[in-house]
Amino acid sequence: MTSLRDDGPAALEWAARYLERVGELPVLAQVEPGEIRARLPRTAPNQPEPFSAVLRDLDEVLLDGVTHWQHPRYFAYFATSSSEPAILAELLAAALNSVAILWRTAPASTELEGVVLDWVADLLGLPDGWHGHIEDTASTSTLAALIAARIATGRDLVVASDQAHSSVEKAARIGGMRSRVVPSDDELRMCVDRLGDLSDTAAVVATVGTTAATAVDPVPEIADTADAAGAWLHVDAAYAGAAMVCEENRWAFAGVDRADSVVVNAHKWMLTPTDCSLLWTRRPDDFRRAFGVVPAYLRTPDHEDALSLSEYSPVLGRRFRALKLWAVLRCYGRSGLQAHIRGGIALATQFEQWVADEPGWELCAPRRFSVVCFRLEGRDAPNRSLLERVNASGEIFISGTVLGGRYVLRLAIGQMSTTLDDVQLAWDVLRREAAAL
Amino acid sequence: MTSLRDDGPAALEWAARYLERVGELPVLAQVEPGEIRARLPRTAPNQPEPFSAVLRDLDEVLLDGVTHWQHPRYFAYFATSSSEPAILAELLAAALNSVAILWRTAPASTELEGVVLDWVADLLGLPDGWHGHIEDTASTSTLAALIAARIATGRDLVVASDQAHSSVEKAARIGGMRSRVVPSDDELRMCVDRLGDLSDTAAVVATVGTTAATAVDPVPEIADTADAAGAWLHVDAAYAGAAMVCEENRWAFAGVDRADSVVVNAHKWMLTPTDCSLLWTRRPDDFRRAFGVVPAYLRTPDHEDALSLSEYSPVLGRRFRALKLWAVLRCYGRSGLQAHIRGGIALATQFEQWVADEPGWELCAPRRFSVVCFRLEGRDAPNRSLLERVNASGEIFISGTVLGGRYVLRLAIGQMSTTLDDVQLAWDVLRREAAAL
Repeated sequence: MTSLRDDGPAALEWAARYLERVGELPVLAQVEPGEIRARLPRTAPNQPEPFSAVLRDLDEVLLDGVTHWQHPRYFAYFATSSSEPAILAELLAAALNSVAILWRTAPASTELEGVVLDWVADLLGLPDGWHGHIEDTASTSTLAALIAARIATGRDLVVASDQAHSSVEKAARIGGMRSRVVPSDDELRMCVDRLGDLSDTAAVVATVGTTAATAVDPVPEIADTADAAGAWLHVDAAYAGAAMVCEENRWAFAGVDRADSVVVNAHKWMLTPTDCSLLWTRRPDDFRRAFGVVPAYLRTPDHEDALSLSEYSPVLGRRFRALKLWAVLRCYGRSGLQAHIRGGIALATQFEQWVADEPGWELCAPRRFSVVCFRLEGRDAPNRSLLERVNASGEIFISGTVLGGRYVLRLAIGQMSTTLDDVQLAWDVLRREAAAL
Repeated sequence: MTSLRDDGPAALEWAARYLERVGELPVLAQVEPGEIRARLPRTAPNQPEPFSAVLRDLDEVLLDGVTHWQHPRYFAYFATSSSEPAILAELLAAALNSVAILWRTAPASTELEGVVLDWVADLLGLPDGWHGHIEDTASTSTLAALIAARIATGRDLVVASDQAHSSVEKAARIGGMRSRVVPSDDELRMCVDRLGDLSDTAAVVATVGTTAATAVDPVPEIADTADAAGAWLHVDAAYAGAAMVCEENRWAFAGVDRADSVVVNAHKWMLTPTDCSLLWTRRPDDFRRAFGVVPAYLRTPDHEDALSLSEYSPVLGRRFRALKLWAVLRCYGRSGLQAHIRGGIALATQFEQWVADEPGWELCAPRRFSVVCFRLEGRDAPNRSLLERVNASGEIFISGTVLGGRYVLRLAIGQMSTTLDDVQLAWDVLRREAAAL
């Protein structure tokens, strides 16, 4: 039988060694669709196998199919980091297996979740006294906010810019809500003067750090307009919110104190592994009205005194995600988080400068944080080919998007192990493959 | 700085020692609401702390606030187990931090998820060829199914029995759907002859193993009726589904092969920590129609060839939950899972017999699996007091519910470490506290 004492050291060694060698592996998995599945048996074993067989097959069968988010040259989408305190905290959380369906089933998990959300609110300059809890991802955080808004306002329209994350459209669809898309300006910010009549609007979603180009919507003006119309203001700061731990980035949070709800993903730029999406609201009663379903088998004598976070969330079962965030906040501290953010922005600034200085290349959007949007001047097709070539090399992994009808490349900094050498290598690979097109 | 090499052994030792001593701790946390929060600082530290401080405070600050789901005498709600292969797999998953927003960002995670869902479908006797994926909890699995049903049928009514899980009502509310409650019979099964007109019904939810009393709805008859009306049939087997790994329990899955979607929680009775809710459907195209939102920044050349599970799910970001289920399936095998299920049912059967034989006590519902519903004969108040007294003792933790208007106690078996001695102790504590009322 597998045991932590007998098999734990090998698992820990695997994880430690993985982090040491991940930089030597191809960043993007170099497999075809179906290839990993074809290597696996069609049925579960009848008899128990040793845990060593799992570790062996992780290396021999699965590893080729892993795209390495922990690689120093992972530059795609939003680069993230699963830091070592958080990894160990996930081990502890799995051992405890606290399930916070109710306060009494997990008082420590429930109360630590409130505490660390208060800590992060303070670190990011959010107002005191907001109610915070953790959802798995920003998809769920935004869904929760939009449903709370729909029920609180009795309206069913969601308004967001053409740069808003796809989870807004998905949430509206789930909630049976209509959605309206507002154009963005030449810096990819929502055009407030195109918001139109909001009298039937349940919620306006403003984004601080859009997915494509990390643009920052004009939140103060959006707040004015939403407020006048009685619409809920939800701020999606899933990526850029973490940057507010540094005072110099706080300009981007102007007006966010007027939001009804805000989401920041600790699992993006705050050294915490997926999943850990932080959701705050100044209208917790509206969340409880939306999600507070307490049947007889969940009623307890402490029901009225104790806060059960499941009453504020689309889901009932909640795992002990606060533990990893607590470990990160303690083992990095404010100064460690600031160093991580500033380091990422400095690397992105350097890359931006290289692109700006290089003939034949162009920047495609203002760089606000740690993501640079750029391209080869000219047509889309060579840029699309370039993306595939650099990713196929396994040396770096970047992603692309479409801005203003043109295909652009994105280099996103966020992995904790990324150094200037890695960014330099990315730039070398890009120019090499561009020359070979 | 925290590192897996320097700090990992202490974390692993903490987890191993925790599992060894958890049986000596009070099962239910003996703290008041707010007590844990009051012990914690109001802000995050400015400077980094060592990981040893996290471990110290886990013991000194948090542990009193942990209700121990891993305790052999945890008998509340549904007792669950986080087994050792799964705990180690969570460590590995956190180290890898694969995020399966798209196939290409996590081919191994995506394909292993499909493989282990096929494995479990085979273990439980579900039809070949269904599409399976993992959601965090049954709340999300049921939400996903009901939204897919709403969009596929163009209807907005959800029908379930008065014994259905509260997540059905919550999902309907999220999806802006109406819901209708069908009465249950004297064995707490849905009354099929009370289903009524289903012509405007999007989905009927049948439950195999209800939360309160683990009743089994008559799925074949419900399937007939739903099918005739063109309604989607969703089967909630979140708890009892795992029992189907034993042939002798398969009677409860009669008709489930006709479902449009089925949910079974691996994190309930399948030795896997929260969160790991398994969702199968024979109508994957309807899920993709509901949840397939693919913006420009997520388009890849492999889009048409490769399956991205985010297109079948309410959320975009998906962590590598398949790894822990794979570890469990391999390290226990079919025989190990069968032994776990049979052992739990045998213990529950023994407890049921003790209650049946004891004057002054009564059984309150047929025992179908590993949950026994029972009470002191007479009024509700003494039963409510009894529940609080036994839980306050810290020796056992049970929960209560209301069946047919009467308050009843539930003893749920499911923890992997529970032995006959633990169940005997529970019965002793119950009789002792009942005598002291």
